[in-house]
Amino acid sequence: MMRLAEMSADELQQMLRHVRAEYDAIRARKLKLNIARGRPGEEQLDLSNELLSLPKPDDWITEAGDDARNYGGDPKGLVELRRIFAPILDVPVEQVVVGGNSSLAIMHDVIVWALLKGVTAIATPWMKQGRIAFLSPVPGYELHHNMCIEYGIDLIPVPVTPKGPDMKVVEHHVRDPRVKGMWCVPTYANPTGEIWSDEVIDRLAAMEAAATDFRLFWDDAYVVHHLADNSKPAKRILPACAAAGNADRPLMFWSTSKITFATAGIGFFAASPANVRWFLDCAKRRGAGQDKLNQLRHARFLKDAGGVTRHMKRHRAILAPKFSAVLQAFERRLAGKGAAVWTRPEGGYFISVDTIAGAAQRAVRLAGDAGISLTAAGSTFPNGHDPKDSNIRIAPSFASLEDVRIAAEAIAISILLAAVEKQLGINDND
Amino acid sequence: MMRLAEMSADELQQMLRHVRAEYDAIRARKLKLNIARGRPGEEQLDLSNELLSLPKPDDWITEAGDDARNYGGDPKGLVELRRIFAPILDVPVEQVVVGGNSSLAIMHDVIVWALLKGVTAIATPWMKQGRIAFLSPVPGYELHHNMCIEYGIDLIPVPVTPKGPDMKVVEHHVRDPRVKGMWCVPTYANPTGEIWSDEVIDRLAAMEAAATDFRLFWDDAYVVHHLADNSKPAKRILPACAAAGNADRPLMFWSTSKITFATAGIGFFAASPANVRWFLDCAKRRGAGQDKLNQLRHARFLKDAGGVTRHMKRHRAILAPKFSAVLQAFERRLAGKGAAVWTRPEGGYFISVDTIAGAAQRAVRLAGDAGISLTAAGSTFPNGHDPKDSNIRIAPSFASLEDVRIAAEAIAISILLAAVEKQLGINDND
Repeated sequence: MMRLAEMSADELQQMLRHVRAEYDAIRARKLKLNIARGRPGEEQLDLSNELLSLPKPDDWITEAGDDARNYGGDPKGLVELRRIFAPILDVPVEQVVVGGNSSLAIMHDVIVWALLKGVTAIATPWMKQGRIAFLSPVPGYELHHNMCIEYGIDLIPVPVTPKGPDMKVVEHHVRDPRVKGMWCVPTYANPTGEIWSDEVIDRLAAMEAAATDFRLFWDDAYVVHHLADNSKPAKRILPACAAAGNADRPLMFWSTSKITFATAGIGFFAASPANVRWFLDCAKRRGAGQDKLNQLRHARFLKDAGGVTRHMKRHRAILAPKFSAVLQAFERRLAGKGAAVWTRPEGGYFISVDTIAGAAQRAVRLAGDAGISLTAAGSTFPNGHDPKDSNIRIAPSFASLEDVRIAAEAIAISILLAAVEKQLGINDND
Repeated sequence: MMRLAEMSADELQQMLRHVRAEYDAIRARKLKLNIARGRPGEEQLDLSNELLSLPKPDDWITEAGDDARNYGGDPKGLVELRRIFAPILDVPVEQVVVGGNSSLAIMHDVIVWALLKGVTAIATPWMKQGRIAFLSPVPGYELHHNMCIEYGIDLIPVPVTPKGPDMKVVEHHVRDPRVKGMWCVPTYANPTGEIWSDEVIDRLAAMEAAATDFRLFWDDAYVVHHLADNSKPAKRILPACAAAGNADRPLMFWSTSKITFATAGIGFFAASPANVRWFLDCAKRRGAGQDKLNQLRHARFLKDAGGVTRHMKRHRAILAPKFSAVLQAFERRLAGKGAAVWTRPEGGYFISVDTIAGAAQRAVRLAGDAGISLTAAGSTFPNGHDPKDSNIRIAPSFASLEDVRIAAEAIAISILLAAVEKQLGINDND
C-alpha cells in the first residue's frame, strides 16, 4: 500500500477518480445518519427502564428518615446514593455531594461562585483579579471551552500526548498567577480517549502553582465507561493531591448521564473537606435542595458499586461492537495511506481522527453531503478553531450498529477523498 | 375583654399568673411539633403518588418526538408541560421556559447572570456598576433576602400594606439608578398573605425606573394555592408591563414544589420574548438541559390547566382546616387583648402575626420551650433583624390537623404570655 505523500500526480489522479466513484455511490444512497454527539443509543437507555417505576409505592423514606417527596434532608444528598459512588471514585462518602441532573451544571456553578465569591471563604473573587485563564488540553470538550469563553476566562491550549496533557507546558503556565484552573478529563479523555498516566497525575498534584486559588476541574465523566477487559480508570486525584500537600487543588465532577438516563440522571461533586464546606455554603443560596426522589430512584436501581459495574458491562456489550465497526472500516479504508491517524480508545464515547493538515473541514462537509452528520470540524478546539484543520470527533454510540457500519464506511471514504484532494491541491470548494 | 395596655399593674400580674399556669400545663405535655417551614404535609404529598409510576412503560417520546430519556430537545422544555401552565399564568406558551427542580434556583441563576453578564446582550454587568440594591417588601421571604446578601446586593425594605408594597416608597427608590430589582410575591405574599391590588401592579408596571436594567423578580409561588371560594391571583404582570411600555421589566418564576412534590417538582421561568432569548442564551452554558423525564411525568399527571385546578382543590381540602384551626385558637385566646394582630389569608402557606413591639423573640422562645418549633423571630426581615421585634410567621401545612390545633393553642398562649411580660417590663431572660 502506497502512502498518498509518496504518490505521483498521475497516481493521485487515478486514486481521485476511484475514490470519487465510491463516494458518489454512497451519496446516491441518500443516507441520513447522526454520528455527531456523544448520546447513548436507545438500546442503552432501555437498560435503565426499571427506573421508570422506582421508587415503588410507599418507598419514599430515605435511610436518614426523610420523605424524599418533600423539602429537607442532608444538603449533601442521600447517603445511600453517595455510598454507591464513593468507592468507585475512591472518595470518602462524606466528601461526595449529590447535585442536580448534570455535572456540567455543577461545573458552571463552581465557576460562577469562584468568579463572584472566590474559591474559599477568604479568597478574592476571580472577578476582582483582572483577566484570568484556564489551561485546556486540546483537542478537548467544547462545552468546557464555551463556559470559559462565556465568562471572559482566557483559554490556554495544552497539547495532548497518549499519556495525557504535555506536563512541561502545564508546569510552565501554572507559574503564572492568572492561571486559575485546568480542565481535565483523565479517564478516556474527550475526544482523544487516552487515560492519563500516573506520572501525569502525580505531576499535576505536586506542581507548583503560582495562584493559591488554582483548581483542577476534574471531569471524570467516563470513569466507569470501559470498552475492554481489565480496564481501570486514571489514578485517583484526591489522594494524589493530598499526598503532595495540595488537598484543596482538585474539584471532581461526574454523573450518571451515560450510566442511566441523560438529563434525567444525577450529577455529583467531590473534593477535600474544606472544598465541600465551601461548595455547600455557596449551594444553599441556590434553592431548597436537589431532587431527592430521583436520588432514591437511582439508589434503588443501582444498589451498590457492584451494581454499577454490572450495569456498565451491559453498556459495553452494546457499545464495543459500534466502536469496532468504526475501527474496522478505518483500518480497511485508510490504513497505510497516510491520510489520517485515529485513536483506538478502550473506553469513553469518542474516536478522535487527525486527517492530514487542512482536510478535516472538507471531510466533514463531504460526509455531510453524503447524509452523515458529524461534529463540526474544529469544535474540539477553543472558539471552534483547529489551527491545523485536522481533528474530527466520531461519536458512534447513538446510531444502530448497522447504521454505524454504513456511516463509518462513508466517513472513511470522505476522509480519504478530502486527503487526496488536499494532496492534489484541489480547492475545497470544487 | 380588656386590652393589656389598659390594665393596671395588679390586673396584669393576675393575668400573668393565670397565663403562666396555662403555659406550664402545656409545657408539661412535652410536645414536639414543627410549625416552622412551609412544607406540604404527608396527606398533600400522597395526592401526587401517581407520579411515582409515570411515565408508563414505553411512554417516553415527547410530543416533539424526542426521547425524554436522552439528551436533546427544545431548550425551553416540553411544550406539553409549558402548555399546561401558560394559561394559568396568562403567558404565551412560547414565553414559558421549564427549568430544573426549583424556582429559587432559577432566580439565583438569573441574578448570577445579571451580575456577570448584564440583563441583556448589551447591558453592563451589574458587577461593574458599583454597589447595587434590590427593593424588598418586609416582612418578606428570607431566601430572597439571603440571595442578595450572598452577592453583596443591598436590600432596601419597603413596608407592606394590605394591598401590597407601599408604592410611594417604591416609586421614590426606583428613581435611584443603583436600584436594579425588586422582590415580589404578588399572590398570597410570603408571609403576609395579601394579594397585591390591581393599582399596585399597574403602578409597578408604569413607574419610572432610573435604571434601564431594572427588573421585577416576580415570584408567583402561590398563584394556584387558594384556600377560599372565588379566589383569584393578582393581576398578571406581563401584559400590564407590556401595556405600559415596559415589556422587559418583569421576570416571572413559579414551580410545582407545592403542587406535586417539593424538590422533585418542576420550576418555571416566563418573561418577554427578549428576556426569554437572553435567559436561554445564558442557560445553555449550564449544561445539557433539564430533566425531560420529570417534565413528561408532570405533563402526564397534571394533563391540562383544569387538571391543576382540580388538584389544587384537593390540597385546599387538606390545608384550609389547618389554617382555620390556627385562626380559631388565635381568636379564642388573643382577640380583643391587644397582644397581637394576625392575617387571615385566603391562600398561600403562611399566617403572619405581629405581636406588640418587643415580644416576638420571647414568644418564639416560649413556644420552643413548650416543644413547638417556629420560624426564628425576625427571619422575615433582611439579615434576620426585625426592628420592632414583632413579626412571627406561622406555617400550618406540615403538621397533622390535630397537631396544628395543639400547636396553635400553645403558640397563642406563648404570644399572650410574652405580651403580658413585656407589658409588665419583665426581662426576657427571666
